[in-house]
Amino acid sequence: MQAFEQKVRKSFGRQAFMTTIGAELISVTPGAVEIKLSFGRHLTQQNDFLHAGVITSILDSACGYAALSVAPENAEVLSVEFKVNLLAPAVGESFVARAQVKKAGKTLTVCTADAFGLNKGNEKLVATMQATIMNMIPQK
Amino acid sequence: MQAFEQKVRKSFGRQAFMTTIGAELISVTPGAVEIKLSFGRHLTQQNDFLHAGVITSILDSACGYAALSVAPENAEVLSVEFKVNLLAPAVGESFVARAQVKKAGKTLTVCTADAFGLNKGNEKLVATMQATIMNMIPQK
Amino acid sequence: MQAFEQKVRKSFGRQAFMTTIGAELISVTPGAVEIKLSFGRHLTQQNDFLHAGVITSILDSACGYAALSVAPENAEVLSVEFKVNLLAPAVGESFVARAQVKKAGKTLTVCTADAFGLNKGNEKLVATMQATIMNMIPQK
Amino acid sequence: MQAFEQKVRKSFGRQAFMTTIGAELISVTPGAVEIKLSFGRHLTQQNDFLHAGVITSILDSACGYAALSVAPENAEVLSVEFKVNLLAPAVGESFVARAQVKKAGKTLTVCTADAFGLNKGNEKLVATMQATIMNMIPQK
Repeated sequence: MQAFEQKVRKSFGRQAFMTTIGAELISVTPGAVEIKLSFGRHLTQQNDFLHAGVITSILDSACGYAALSVAPENAEVLSVEFKVNLLAPAVGESFVARAQVKKAGKTLTVCTADAFGLNKGNEKLVATMQATIMNMIPQK
Repeated sequence: MQAFEQKVRKSFGRQAFMTTIGAELISVTPGAVEIKLSFGRHLTQQNDFLHAGVITSILDSACGYAALSVAPENAEVLSVEFKVNLLAPAVGESFVARAQVKKAGKTLTVCTADAFGLNKGNEKLVATMQATIMNMIPQK
Repeated sequence: MQAFEQKVRKSFGRQAFMTTIGAELISVTPGAVEIKLSFGRHLTQQNDFLHAGVITSILDSACGYAALSVAPENAEVLSVEFKVNLLAPAVGESFVARAQVKKAGKTLTVCTADAFGLNKGNEKLVATMQATIMNMIPQK
Repeated sequence: MQAFEQKVRKSFGRQAFMTTIGAELISVTPGAVEIKLSFGRHLTQQNDFLHAGVITSILDSACGYAALSVAPENAEVLSVEFKVNLLAPAVGESFVARAQVKKAGKTLTVCTADAFGLNKGNEKLVATMQATIMNMIPQK
């Protein structure tokens, strides 16, 4: 496993909230990350759809780790801001968030990500994110 | 309790995810809603701050219910989109999201919301949201 | 020329501000629109880059017309909201905004758009937009 | 006139696009800026409302200069990203954008701004922005 993937997987493993909701890191390539989540009744809003905050959580982690995968070796990342459009009710047996780097800068990286609901092998786009992530260089 | 508050409290009670993270509906007035959340290790990201998705979850629910509190009696609401700026690390013993309606329209309502971390009685602004919510009139 | 293109070109022709800044409608296909703009000193901010508001103007019109190109025949469109990331200084001999429909709904359509600076035949990504557009059905 | 106001007024004076649309800097206080604009037919979209890009232009400049008014003395500012909600048709004899700093950071500052249409002495909220601005320290 390459250094950037190790770094992403290690950091993801420390995100206790990803464990809480049952999210898994599926794939990590330079500038692109995929996170998967199974549907659960405990993750829903009032209409039994996945809560927008849950969808946002996997989109945000996917964007952050896509940025981290191309960040300088000693950098960590922090989400600065994001915008999410909820395009369809978040229904599905499971969900996948796919993020890619749009522009990697020295200080700021911009990513986009889509979330899909999976049902009997069919994917349906349910949400999309545009996010700004900051490289944090630890100062010693 | 007035009709709008009953409606909001009933819907909030059906958001299983709010129960999962331990969020509580503190106050509901026409056009303004407050949601509180205790810190928990299971809600964190890699630096032991609250995950941005958790902060977003209470901001989103607060905005949705602020919109619902002024929506037509038979309407339900759905989040169309939101944008969140993460202003400071989400640290605190607990957190509160406060949403208010900025503009209530026939179809769309725009809300803003702030999230604060609470520590020994001090509040610190940690995130802010601008959100668009849609009124859904059930058709029979 | 097909009806959707006529409709888009007629509406664009009525946007006086597009004429003011010298923007041109380059192409209109179902769900995708391209707008071009020549650089001008009168369109700049303090560092002689194109003002972010000018870049946003062509991105917004491109998104609106991409939505209109797939809207019901009698519908007009109105921008509900948009988010823009400015990815690089907006320098170039000219600029092009390319919008595409991400999800067309009955009431709301979501589009994404990129803006590029053109210099000696090279394109450079300078900004990106995620936008929500509303179908307005005139009521008589 | 204090240094921060001089700095803002000098930079605004170099924004050729503000002159092009006829925008004026009304007031500059630490962390808050007001910009005014008269209605003009050459600034409109297809329904004779002010183009969303024009409203965005004065909101963006107001946010940038609110950030600059509290930035370190040698810093310049650059818009990183913004999100605008268009709340009502932009009609009026004139328009005013009022921005204020929400959180000033070392590298990034977050501002919010509202735009109002003015008609016979009445103000109507027409748009609202949430923006991220970056401090640029020139390196010599």
